[in-house]
Amino acid sequence: MAQVQRMSRLMIKTLRDDPADAETLSHKLLVRAGYVRRNAAGIWTWLPLGKKVLENVTRVVREEMDAIGGQEVLLPALLPKEPYEASGRWDEYGDLLFRVKDRKGGDYLLGPTHEEVFTQTVKDQCTSYKDLPVILYQIQTKYRDEARPRSGVLRGREFQMKDAYSFDTSDEGLAESYALHREAYQNIFRRLGLDFRICSAVSGAMGGSASEEFLAPAAAGEDTFVDCPECDYAANTEAVTFALQPVEGQDHPALEELDTPDTPTIETLAEHLGVPASATLKNLLVKVDGEIVAVGVPGDREVDLGKLGEQLSPAVVELVTAEDFEGRDDLVRGYVGPQGLEKVRYIADPRVAPGTSWITGANKPDTHAKNVVCGRDFEVDDYVDVVVVEEGDPCPKCGAGVKLDRAIEIGHIFQLGRKYADTFQLDVLGKEGKPVRVTMGSYGIGVSRAVAALAEQSADDKGLCWAPEVAPADVHVVAAGKAAQTELALEVAEKLGAAGVRVLVDDRAGVSPGVKFTDAELIGVPTVLVAGRRTAEGVVELKDRRTGEREELPVAEAIARITA
Amino acid sequence: MAQVQRMSRLMIKTLRDDPADAETLSHKLLVRAGYVRRNAAGIWTWLPLGKKVLENVTRVVREEMDAIGGQEVLLPALLPKEPYEASGRWDEYGDLLFRVKDRKGGDYLLGPTHEEVFTQTVKDQCTSYKDLPVILYQIQTKYRDEARPRSGVLRGREFQMKDAYSFDTSDEGLAESYALHREAYQNIFRRLGLDFRICSAVSGAMGGSASEEFLAPAAAGEDTFVDCPECDYAANTEAVTFALQPVEGQDHPALEELDTPDTPTIETLAEHLGVPASATLKNLLVKVDGEIVAVGVPGDREVDLGKLGEQLSPAVVELVTAEDFEGRDDLVRGYVGPQGLEKVRYIADPRVAPGTSWITGANKPDTHAKNVVCGRDFEVDDYVDVVVVEEGDPCPKCGAGVKLDRAIEIGHIFQLGRKYADTFQLDVLGKEGKPVRVTMGSYGIGVSRAVAALAEQSADDKGLCWAPEVAPADVHVVAAGKAAQTELALEVAEKLGAAGVRVLVDDRAGVSPGVKFTDAELIGVPTVLVAGRRTAEGVVELKDRRTGEREELPVAEAIARITA
Repeated sequence: MAQVQRMSRLMIKTLRDDPADAETLSHKLLVRAGYVRRNAAGIWTWLPLGKKVLENVTRVVREEMDAIGGQEVLLPALLPKEPYEASGRWDEYGDLLFRVKDRKGGDYLLGPTHEEVFTQTVKDQCTSYKDLPVILYQIQTKYRDEARPRSGVLRGREFQMKDAYSFDTSDEGLAESYALHREAYQNIFRRLGLDFRICSAVSGAMGGSASEEFLAPAAAGEDTFVDCPECDYAANTEAVTFALQPVEGQDHPALEELDTPDTPTIETLAEHLGVPASATLKNLLVKVDGEIVAVGVPGDREVDLGKLGEQLSPAVVELVTAEDFEGRDDLVRGYVGPQGLEKVRYIADPRVAPGTSWITGANKPDTHAKNVVCGRDFEVDDYVDVVVVEEGDPCPKCGAGVKLDRAIEIGHIFQLGRKYADTFQLDVLGKEGKPVRVTMGSYGIGVSRAVAALAEQSADDKGLCWAPEVAPADVHVVAAGKAAQTELALEVAEKLGAAGVRVLVDDRAGVSPGVKFTDAELIGVPTVLVAGRRTAEGVVELKDRRTGEREELPVAEAIARITA
Repeated sequence: MAQVQRMSRLMIKTLRDDPADAETLSHKLLVRAGYVRRNAAGIWTWLPLGKKVLENVTRVVREEMDAIGGQEVLLPALLPKEPYEASGRWDEYGDLLFRVKDRKGGDYLLGPTHEEVFTQTVKDQCTSYKDLPVILYQIQTKYRDEARPRSGVLRGREFQMKDAYSFDTSDEGLAESYALHREAYQNIFRRLGLDFRICSAVSGAMGGSASEEFLAPAAAGEDTFVDCPECDYAANTEAVTFALQPVEGQDHPALEELDTPDTPTIETLAEHLGVPASATLKNLLVKVDGEIVAVGVPGDREVDLGKLGEQLSPAVVELVTAEDFEGRDDLVRGYVGPQGLEKVRYIADPRVAPGTSWITGANKPDTHAKNVVCGRDFEVDDYVDVVVVEEGDPCPKCGAGVKLDRAIEIGHIFQLGRKYADTFQLDVLGKEGKPVRVTMGSYGIGVSRAVAALAEQSADDKGLCWAPEVAPADVHVVAAGKAAQTELALEVAEKLGAAGVRVLVDDRAGVSPGVKFTDAELIGVPTVLVAGRRTAEGVVELKDRRTGEREELPVAEAIARITA
């Protein structure tokens, strides 16, 4: 009985117009079709249809997490400050954290993610290697005080998340737990009907598989990722690493200094010499943990400071200031070249490969040098890919020109290692009777965000269009309006409901057939069954919401088709 | 597959000793059996077994709410201040409210209950009488900053609640929605296996059915209620109303004044005269909305100020102070009597019935009067039951002496009326084309509290003892320890699991049979199946956790018995 939802009794008010503040497709459609309602910036109500979709996504996530041996728990959302102070995140999160004081003045926070508390839980519950591995997960309301909450439920300040954590005694164990999650996430997103790519989230420097993102390509996405049209390579822009390809056998003329007055920038230099910026070598000075380091990239490329920081992590990377040049006669601002920079560590992009020749600073004011050859005139201390990726850059895997696409991050899996175990001294007794430090993984899925991603990817110009597993109903039965049509519609709905089919039946009186059809397309249930003009003959129309294909057939046949 | 949980892989650590801070049975057992873990005062983690029980309770609540046409939604827990300011509850809640500021300084709260936001939701979604009635519900995390969080999950500061709200256009509609919830709640608590009583929450003055509480009798309960051992009467102590029974045909001597120096209290008076306190009439002066009112009760009874306030609601009731006597020669402090108290409204308890005779103040210093007869020497303006109920008081329904019992409030249903609809001007277009003000009901179930109530009611000296519908598993299979026993236990578990039975199987290595049996009793799964000393013969022991009855039978028979 609960399978049949009559629209005459459903709390729903569909809208013909987009809400004024909505920018993205999913935001517009989820509001217009009566799935969600805004309470405050980034704070939303899930209305009856929206709650059903959210629950369907939750069920799929739960089933697949259970299938890999995940144990469901529920931790508090209101958390005491202490564990987050211990990990340093009480401060690191800054304004992103909702902080709360209780009646006694005690400090609490609304959990944005729960690594700290899960670590404490396992420390409390597990004492021996026999108690591990353990995979724990929860599906819970999370809080982040985003500076710019937007795009409806895509980036909320209160949102539903599945967060999971694995605890192992060895790196191999962690790799296994990670692989289990990677597989489970693929199953989840496939079942949800999402188009997704698995992207390296950080580059090889930290171990290529340490972190991967699951991205759902969508125009409304806030992430940009590198997508190869020729092979399966996909990566976060920060994680792209260009392979080092030394150039051999070329005979370069000797280094030669050039008088280049007033050319402290690549632009002025290239113009003065009449060469493309790509022929020049740009040397950016930064401070890494306080020490000045030079970073060399082709003159036409930008340095991605985030990527640089990520690659050198956990070091602190800062830009140099005028003060840093004081007493450093070896550093001529605007005219730095890697040749003869003996006291400075030189990091270069792989594009500055051995055997390549450059125009670069001569370490003298108003002077540059040409025919400066890597490996002959200067050495690179470390190769690190630090340039901003551009459309058409060669795919690191197959060499084809890559595309840059926008996507929604729907999942993230991460080999955390021993960071939190170290903070909370999470050890278990090992096989040999000695304490073993535990290693952790952390794995998230944005459950409410997945609903928005699904809406983004599946919607068309008529409205939402859900995959069967997540749709709020299997069939939307529309009674065109006359009494006999409503009677037939309800009869069909009951029969389908009795057969276990989830039915939404539009039995509203005083609503025109046109409005009902428009609403059905907006709501996006996969199959629409219409009791219309051939009701007297017992013939109904069956329509596929996605393809728009229609077919008229006798009631019994339509029911058989659906229940098959 | 997911039906079989191996204890060797379950995160559980049972404890032999009660936690030091635990006072109540459910608190002790839920912690000891590994169901919950404390994070902070009144803030708890639901561990794997606890989460299963919580989920089972949630499922039952959801099914029964759906069965009465309830539509599930999910509102935010983090709520903007404005609607609660409009209703006055932003201030009224005082310290009970967790208040939060966002990064821009905006005021928010963590929702303790959601009448305001549901009213706004319906105002937004429903515009016509055709859109009503509507029953909305959510199962959600709620927050109350209790002054004394205690008893484990029984009174937490973060807790799970099912809150439902009905919206109707007429009082009759509200009564119907209320009746539906009353029925659903009975079904829910019966299915959960709870012993419960439905108690009037407020007395007849406001309409007897306007509010009822569902109480689960338990020693750990924080509520006291009046329970009739002879009939089905049960009520909140504040809601008990003693029937007015006039005494007729008695011939009382004439009123006579008595010289009673220094007897301003009932105790001093009764001692001075050598009469029981019950022979005297106590007249308490209070201010009702600023006006002085006298309240008469038998001298041996206490006035329940809460009850008085409830009965006179929405008036503000305060005790009088010395200042209130200034300029009031008619009020002689300590010697007030209802006779001749012309300028003061006189409220009396029904025990001060017409025809009863009393010793009371004579409205002169150091003077009392005897043979003061109600109806002859004074009149009562209003009869209101305001005394503190005592064990042995006559049952208002059958007259038998009542008991006072402790209980846990597990549900509350309430005909709110138009309070919130008035605040938010929630009208819909009526049948006659005019706006109709909507009337509301509000209905709560403490979901996490129900788990504690179940633990309280069903536990015995060995541990927890769940009803089948809420138990974390149907069968607890114990492998006594030897390899063959573990093999058989796992085989039986798989067979049961395949048949849809939820199984917890204790396959832990290196754990003694004694510990396993003790753990099984502590955990409280209804049926325990032991692969023990007759494993070689294919005989297992089947034990009923509640009764302790044991039976040895062949494996196939045991499986058949369980799956039957």
